[in-house]
Amino acid sequence: MPPSLFWPGDHRAGDVFSPEAYARALVAVEVAWLRVLAASGPAPAGAADTLAEMSVDPGQLVEIATDAEGGGNPVIPLLAILRPRLSDAEAKWVHKGLTSQDVVDTALMLCARSAIDQLAADLGRCVAALAQLAEGHRRTIMVGRTLTQHAVPITFGLKAAGWLAGVLDALDVLAVARRGLRVQCGGAAGTLAAIAELSGNDGVGWSAGLAAELALAPSTPWHTRRTPVTAVGDALVTVTDVLGHVASDIVVLSRSEIAEVSEPAGEHRGGSSTMPQKRNPILAVLIRRAAATAPLLGSQLHLACAQAVDERPDGAWHTEWQPLALLARHALTAASQAAELLEGLEVHADAMSATVERAMPGLLAEQVSIRALVGRPTEAVDASNYLGATQSIIDITLDRGREAGAQL
Amino acid sequence: MPPSLFWPGDHRAGDVFSPEAYARALVAVEVAWLRVLAASGPAPAGAADTLAEMSVDPGQLVEIATDAEGGGNPVIPLLAILRPRLSDAEAKWVHKGLTSQDVVDTALMLCARSAIDQLAADLGRCVAALAQLAEGHRRTIMVGRTLTQHAVPITFGLKAAGWLAGVLDALDVLAVARRGLRVQCGGAAGTLAAIAELSGNDGVGWSAGLAAELALAPSTPWHTRRTPVTAVGDALVTVTDVLGHVASDIVVLSRSEIAEVSEPAGEHRGGSSTMPQKRNPILAVLIRRAAATAPLLGSQLHLACAQAVDERPDGAWHTEWQPLALLARHALTAASQAAELLEGLEVHADAMSATVERAMPGLLAEQVSIRALVGRPTEAVDASNYLGATQSIIDITLDRGREAGAQL
Amino acid sequence: MPPSLFWPGDHRAGDVFSPEAYARALVAVEVAWLRVLAASGPAPAGAADTLAEMSVDPGQLVEIATDAEGGGNPVIPLLAILRPRLSDAEAKWVHKGLTSQDVVDTALMLCARSAIDQLAADLGRCVAALAQLAEGHRRTIMVGRTLTQHAVPITFGLKAAGWLAGVLDALDVLAVARRGLRVQCGGAAGTLAAIAELSGNDGVGWSAGLAAELALAPSTPWHTRRTPVTAVGDALVTVTDVLGHVASDIVVLSRSEIAEVSEPAGEHRGGSSTMPQKRNPILAVLIRRAAATAPLLGSQLHLACAQAVDERPDGAWHTEWQPLALLARHALTAASQAAELLEGLEVHADAMSATVERAMPGLLAEQVSIRALVGRPTEAVDASNYLGATQSIIDITLDRGREAGAQL
Amino acid sequence: MPPSLFWPGDHRAGDVFSPEAYARALVAVEVAWLRVLAASGPAPAGAADTLAEMSVDPGQLVEIATDAEGGGNPVIPLLAILRPRLSDAEAKWVHKGLTSQDVVDTALMLCARSAIDQLAADLGRCVAALAQLAEGHRRTIMVGRTLTQHAVPITFGLKAAGWLAGVLDALDVLAVARRGLRVQCGGAAGTLAAIAELSGNDGVGWSAGLAAELALAPSTPWHTRRTPVTAVGDALVTVTDVLGHVASDIVVLSRSEIAEVSEPAGEHRGGSSTMPQKRNPILAVLIRRAAATAPLLGSQLHLACAQAVDERPDGAWHTEWQPLALLARHALTAASQAAELLEGLEVHADAMSATVERAMPGLLAEQVSIRALVGRPTEAVDASNYLGATQSIIDITLDRGREAGAQL
Repeated sequence: MPPSLFWPGDHRAGDVFSPEAYARALVAVEVAWLRVLAASGPAPAGAADTLAEMSVDPGQLVEIATDAEGGGNPVIPLLAILRPRLSDAEAKWVHKGLTSQDVVDTALMLCARSAIDQLAADLGRCVAALAQLAEGHRRTIMVGRTLTQHAVPITFGLKAAGWLAGVLDALDVLAVARRGLRVQCGGAAGTLAAIAELSGNDGVGWSAGLAAELALAPSTPWHTRRTPVTAVGDALVTVTDVLGHVASDIVVLSRSEIAEVSEPAGEHRGGSSTMPQKRNPILAVLIRRAAATAPLLGSQLHLACAQAVDERPDGAWHTEWQPLALLARHALTAASQAAELLEGLEVHADAMSATVERAMPGLLAEQVSIRALVGRPTEAVDASNYLGATQSIIDITLDRGREAGAQL
Repeated sequence: MPPSLFWPGDHRAGDVFSPEAYARALVAVEVAWLRVLAASGPAPAGAADTLAEMSVDPGQLVEIATDAEGGGNPVIPLLAILRPRLSDAEAKWVHKGLTSQDVVDTALMLCARSAIDQLAADLGRCVAALAQLAEGHRRTIMVGRTLTQHAVPITFGLKAAGWLAGVLDALDVLAVARRGLRVQCGGAAGTLAAIAELSGNDGVGWSAGLAAELALAPSTPWHTRRTPVTAVGDALVTVTDVLGHVASDIVVLSRSEIAEVSEPAGEHRGGSSTMPQKRNPILAVLIRRAAATAPLLGSQLHLACAQAVDERPDGAWHTEWQPLALLARHALTAASQAAELLEGLEVHADAMSATVERAMPGLLAEQVSIRALVGRPTEAVDASNYLGATQSIIDITLDRGREAGAQL
Repeated sequence: MPPSLFWPGDHRAGDVFSPEAYARALVAVEVAWLRVLAASGPAPAGAADTLAEMSVDPGQLVEIATDAEGGGNPVIPLLAILRPRLSDAEAKWVHKGLTSQDVVDTALMLCARSAIDQLAADLGRCVAALAQLAEGHRRTIMVGRTLTQHAVPITFGLKAAGWLAGVLDALDVLAVARRGLRVQCGGAAGTLAAIAELSGNDGVGWSAGLAAELALAPSTPWHTRRTPVTAVGDALVTVTDVLGHVASDIVVLSRSEIAEVSEPAGEHRGGSSTMPQKRNPILAVLIRRAAATAPLLGSQLHLACAQAVDERPDGAWHTEWQPLALLARHALTAASQAAELLEGLEVHADAMSATVERAMPGLLAEQVSIRALVGRPTEAVDASNYLGATQSIIDITLDRGREAGAQL
Repeated sequence: MPPSLFWPGDHRAGDVFSPEAYARALVAVEVAWLRVLAASGPAPAGAADTLAEMSVDPGQLVEIATDAEGGGNPVIPLLAILRPRLSDAEAKWVHKGLTSQDVVDTALMLCARSAIDQLAADLGRCVAALAQLAEGHRRTIMVGRTLTQHAVPITFGLKAAGWLAGVLDALDVLAVARRGLRVQCGGAAGTLAAIAELSGNDGVGWSAGLAAELALAPSTPWHTRRTPVTAVGDALVTVTDVLGHVASDIVVLSRSEIAEVSEPAGEHRGGSSTMPQKRNPILAVLIRRAAATAPLLGSQLHLACAQAVDERPDGAWHTEWQPLALLARHALTAASQAAELLEGLEVHADAMSATVERAMPGLLAEQVSIRALVGRPTEAVDASNYLGATQSIIDITLDRGREAGAQL
């Protein structure tokens, strides 16, 4: 898939949750099922290997996508392409016992795993960069701003620690979601009846076998219980949330009048088509874009969960695929951009210091009033001694970051 | 662009709002601007024609999409590809006086126009099909259902007239949106200052010239006043709304236990990968999917409008492109599916009649109670004489449909 | 209803779309229907007047709200309270021929009319204030900002004209929505069958009579065709969109480091619980809040439209009421806040001028490059002669504002 | 707060997340803080007890809500009412060291805890009822339906087990969210600087003290890191998701033509204003309503998280309160309705059986084809022996339910 012209930066998501990757995942599920059928039952031993060698070329992808309308999903047309390439004795076992939704749902779990793993790597880069910023700017004093107005002093290290804590929160949620990735294997109506006919027992073992082949968690069928999907969606949205917060701060701090941070310079980065002097905080702008759209994509998955009906829904299920794929790709793009942005962020401590000077004496008005209350000398007020628990907060967060880093 | 594997039916939207169509629209805007520059000013006369001959090949599309990250939109990399193909004397005038947003916004208006025109055609097919159903089933009595329960009698013609009225409402909204499609031409900060430098006057005439070249409405700049975009979005959502209502009704009426309508049969249409006896209402299911996702895409455009800031927004603008493109393509797919569905809808009058019989006598309980109140004979109650204004409502709606049909 | 503790500023919406106003509107519909029944038919002449005298006290509102769960809407419990206060001869005609949804939908149209009229008044105040700002600051030069960075010069008058154009767009959409407010009158399944039994004809005349009594547009029934509701919703969202844009600009321009505008001072306005020196742009902040939430409330109405089914929906209809009421109240609050904000906005022309100075010479880099291209003297570049069509754009917009003002 | 006239059933949420409860929670935070100030520092010992005795009457609530606009939140006007009732020596310590956001955020965590605990209780009732249905209908055969069409046999016990698994998933997510409820205590810009001035150390101990007083988790400040709020929101949405799925199934199975389940009968329950024979599945309809609106309320919280900026956001924070309160109340209402619905659900096994008969022989077409494949006798096909792993799936789910029940 070429990167989207409507979503600059999309190339960063690479192949993850691309149509090609999705098609490969569909095939991987069918291959794994053939292995189960061969290991425990009637399918010929080599069929799975033969199928595993097959690939779907671009023209066939178009054919599959087009023909997917007939049954409402790509499994039937995919099988129509794959089966003729096998011998009859092999072909007749392909997909046998499964329903289309088993294959689609399990394939989406595989795609989600790729996305989560790539995200964890990029967020790991963010963790490292943020830890360095928090440590390195522990004492870089800047103004704290509330409701856009100068409030009291903070340090840039504290701000970076706050960003870091957010990224760590997202990693926590992501880890839970990853553990929840599970196999879908229930047959036409979630009873495993066809599988039971094939296996001669109730089929639960074969379902577990499919899970094991794909290194997914085993599960009872969840065709109309979509919590595994919303868990992934909520985790992906949490990723763009915390990155959006970072980017929103950077956009503000990059304003011409503030100029306390700059994005890393790069060729053609942040340029304008007409004004050569400009250097726009374009990575932050594009991350904000992802953060502003991810929540609605995530809520689409919840709507699908809430409206699931019967043993396969009458429309809700079909709404999940595109939002989930977009959500994953947007999160990946944003995480990659954030890693680059944070690794190269230019922090202008002098500009921060100058802003602090201009914000005086109002910036210490609170300190004066508290000191007056408790009877301390108010002439000794100073931004550097009105920082409260800043160091402790940074320490606590860096500790958390080290633990997370060790687990990644 | 190949049709999306994540959105079965996407091939129906064809080239509308595809990356290729978007790239062509961007070029078309630059071409039109070169014509303005040549007609009124300094650019060489043949440059526009030379540019108009150029096309962007798939590999270049990838390059443009990738490089679009640098400036945040595809205009700079597009120009980097186009300019070297012109002579220096021509190349230096390309894009001169415009800003990237002028080109992107105007190109999106052109893409929106294609979408609206194609939608009007497909909705016109729906209008014709629905008029025929309303007329042909004026007296086909069926049960009315409220909150899922049998209520009082209606006719299928009345139901079709209600669907028709919805489609006509959507056409009305679409017509307003089409009239609002306008040029974006303001330069870096919406002042037309660069254009004024080039033209020697205040530049408004050249802006109007660009509008005329592209057959769009002239306009003052709207870089951060995004109502033209939300108007298009609301119209597209209204289209999927009314089609979603039709599809939701059809999904219910197709249930195995009701079976009062069937989707048109088609090869591979509505089939199952495991159950040969099934005939799923798959077009209606896929239309419902579009209707369940369009509202959130539309609200994304409103969020962008509300959060526009400065003379070009810091992220909100960039969120518009993908939702707008998806919204248009989903509406087109749904409208094409709806036209096919309604043109071939099988109406089972006998099944409707049988349901009416089974619903007796409760179905006429209201008639009995009203007749008792006004002292009419309650033994004469009958579904065929408890239809009130059904004929008038059908007539009013058909009249409206004829007027709309004449305008299409 | 007390103003919401969760939505500071809610008191500005007054009684519009309050539970009390909704209950009164429900009664007003029943009263109007009694008048139709008396004028054309069997109900006693005085019943409507008797009913019109009745009011619902707070305790009864609680009872109605609680009992509304039984039937899913408040009409049955409302009638249970009202009917016993009439004579039997009167009581038996109350609501006769209507269904609950007729009463609820028509009452919501009445509430929407109140909201739209109040909104038009507050937006009219915004139009006047913005026209004054645009005229008065025609030549107040400031920096234009794109992607947060200084770009080229604009004037504050141009910015105000852009805000004004947005408000005028919203007034246009609001006017269309107001014309679309219509009666709902169809009986149990939208056939007017019960009304026809009562009237002896097909009932359309009585439906028109109800519309006339309430000064709403006549209409065929729209129980499951919800475009009249989405049209109101889209208009309300457009209001908060354009006000959100204004507020987002003001929040930026109020930043401590920019300080080019200030909100009007007011007692307890913009204060902090701990920092006495602060003056937060709190009206703009609260308007932005409305603009960030309205789009999702609006999309809820579209979802309801898309999922309407049968002759009364199985859940979608019930989702409309709260979002619609909240949307209306939020828009009213925001419009009232915006009027106050714009009428008292402090514009710091000196600060704008100082920013322009600091932004030199980059702010004129584009002018230099264009002049070099066309061979004009580049030493004469100056912010005051790089404003292009600014004056014309202001003129065009002020003209539009005068026309709109004349219509309000 | 009277129950909402726009949300029938709202009375079931009782006082949870009502304005009154919110005001009490705000006071509770100030009381707890006074205890910390007295225990560790300078405030007089009795002040907290005096404050704890105070209540806010309805008129004062109106005053607080109205005056909340000035600072953008209710804390300043609340303090303006409370402080004068204390002696000067006490009053001067109230709120000292905190910022408004500390009080608001911590109060919202307290309200969220009430909501979660009440939800867990109602979901516990659902778990018990569903376990009984799953166990009791292990062998009640019914048709499985996919894409609205008869597919293969299932049992009603399997369906109930699927519903149960969803509720258990929601309880799991809710438990994680409950553990994440934490104190907000950072002062003006999240540094605890004022607290440090008061305590003479870095203030972290006092923050932990506040957490301990309120039995919340201790935490570094999270004024602009809103993951604790989105975690609550996602959990609440997951609750309505899984209940919405149950309700959507019940609405379908209640259709007049299917009639395989009925809602529990109740006086005035499911009645119509005009059709006495009707019994609408109104609880399920109202639960579906909650499920269709919760996802967008939840996404509002994510948007707020993503757009948090500076040390207190310029609008995003203020958007959280109403969606969070509505989300909690809607979830509570839905859970209470679901408990009642499931405890009294009437299951019509005879109707299920009759549907199975009518669905033959298609319902066993898959079984025939599989048996033909593996060479088993196809004349022995029977719905009762084409149920695969149904019993195992029910067992696994009941086990999970018992574990959850033990923890509630």
